[in-house]
Amino acid sequence: MKVGFLGPKATFTEIAVMSVFSEDELEPFRTIPECMDAVADDRVELAVVPIENALEGSVNITLDYLTRVVDIPIVGEITIPIKQHFMVHPSNQEHWQDVKHIYSHSHAIAQCHKFLHTQFKGVPFESVTSTAAAAKMVMDHPEWQAAAIANELAAKEYGLQIVQRNIHDFNFNQTSFFILSNKDMDLPLMEAANATYKTTIMVTLPADHAGALHQVLSAFAWRKLNLSKIESRPMKTGIGNYFFIIDIEMKLDEVLIPGAMAELEALGCGVKILGSYPSLMVELD
Amino acid sequence: MKVGFLGPKATFTEIAVMSVFSEDELEPFRTIPECMDAVADDRVELAVVPIENALEGSVNITLDYLTRVVDIPIVGEITIPIKQHFMVHPSNQEHWQDVKHIYSHSHAIAQCHKFLHTQFKGVPFESVTSTAAAAKMVMDHPEWQAAAIANELAAKEYGLQIVQRNIHDFNFNQTSFFILSNKDMDLPLMEAANATYKTTIMVTLPADHAGALHQVLSAFAWRKLNLSKIESRPMKTGIGNYFFIIDIEMKLDEVLIPGAMAELEALGCGVKILGSYPSLMVELD
Repeated sequence: MKVGFLGPKATFTEIAVMSVFSEDELEPFRTIPECMDAVADDRVELAVVPIENALEGSVNITLDYLTRVVDIPIVGEITIPIKQHFMVHPSNQEHWQDVKHIYSHSHAIAQCHKFLHTQFKGVPFESVTSTAAAAKMVMDHPEWQAAAIANELAAKEYGLQIVQRNIHDFNFNQTSFFILSNKDMDLPLMEAANATYKTTIMVTLPADHAGALHQVLSAFAWRKLNLSKIESRPMKTGIGNYFFIIDIEMKLDEVLIPGAMAELEALGCGVKILGSYPSLMVELD
Repeated sequence: MKVGFLGPKATFTEIAVMSVFSEDELEPFRTIPECMDAVADDRVELAVVPIENALEGSVNITLDYLTRVVDIPIVGEITIPIKQHFMVHPSNQEHWQDVKHIYSHSHAIAQCHKFLHTQFKGVPFESVTSTAAAAKMVMDHPEWQAAAIANELAAKEYGLQIVQRNIHDFNFNQTSFFILSNKDMDLPLMEAANATYKTTIMVTLPADHAGALHQVLSAFAWRKLNLSKIESRPMKTGIGNYFFIIDIEMKLDEVLIPGAMAELEALGCGVKILGSYPSLMVELD
């Protein structure tokens, strides 16, 4: 099976992909839309793209492209812990505390703010397009005496030496990834202990009136359907117009979710199921 | 009065600032947090920072910094239309259709996708940190035969020639800006015809249970309080934990909003008023 993912190699997306699809043929894509286009055009059978980070929130480009441009069901979700390490070229590992530059993705730099502030105050840092790109730059230029903040896989892939592990400020940082596919497939994710089922729907409200969203939530509340997420995104028709992405904590059934959806449609809402899928929490060492 | 704003000069934020504070002393800041810090430290009396774009959604850094780091009331909101123009160095205006490069902010490039795709297919574009920075680069390097996508103010500020007006795909694109201040001030925004009042509150839910958000919305619904926006942001304590920013379409009163807030607190929610303020829709030619 061919699995597309947001590249380059050795990013957190590849760690997520490897945790489930280590036996498959993996193809990195340069951007999230390109990766989703590839599964829409049947060039890959599955696409794995980031959807949410515990610190930064939703990945808007994934949500927007999935709701507006391509129409591909969500068939699974993988959540992994985000662990950032400090790494240098092996020839610099003896004097790693004297690095002159630090490279990483802007989010990773933000996530390691305390470490950088206490241990490398005054050392300039620069953001590049991914943590993997930072690792590659540091490997290619030992003479810069630079360090990268990146993950374990990037250290292995590019041959860097990790000199300080787990330098991130928040221990509970995680990122979730959607698995998208047009193929009707039953991924073996539910075999893991940490797996649950989710159903994600998209709801557009009828003409703006007080309490429309409250009515929508009522349809779930009286059925005791637990919502784990509700996210508003702009309709692109002017400020103040939104649609909502809602996660329901159960597998699509034949009674409760269809009943709630029929009720919403009767209220004048637009409702669309984006997927009903197993969601897996991966533990890494 | 000294007014800080997200710089550099000639961005859309400055257009918003000029529409209300044209008589005041203006100071551009490099980043949104720096601008908000300046008003927190009393170096400026007001700060104007973007909060939402009709196409891209909320500006997360503004929401996060306002709810976590600084504690400054919202005293007003300005919404302006976003109009993008195609501009070149005056020496290139005769043969502007032959430009070799196009520079702009990544959002502006995305907003003019159709225009670029039909009229400049194959011409490479590059994103820089702001539309104003793009305009400055094009002015500084006439020999590059480059064009910038930027606003009217940038064309004036840097002396570029607008050769094609209103090249954006969506005519209803707008951006809203918060005016933040620790000073108790009554901005004369309500004198304009297009002004309304809003109250913005932040709500954290009690321990996760089905229907918690529904209960929160009920407190507003039965009082017929119209909510124009509800936005979830991560609590930074792991995926699945959110707080909510809610806009109520009225001025803080002595009965309805305090009643709803007392009810939410009785349910175990945390509630905080971020501001009750006039919101102004500015029309530009």
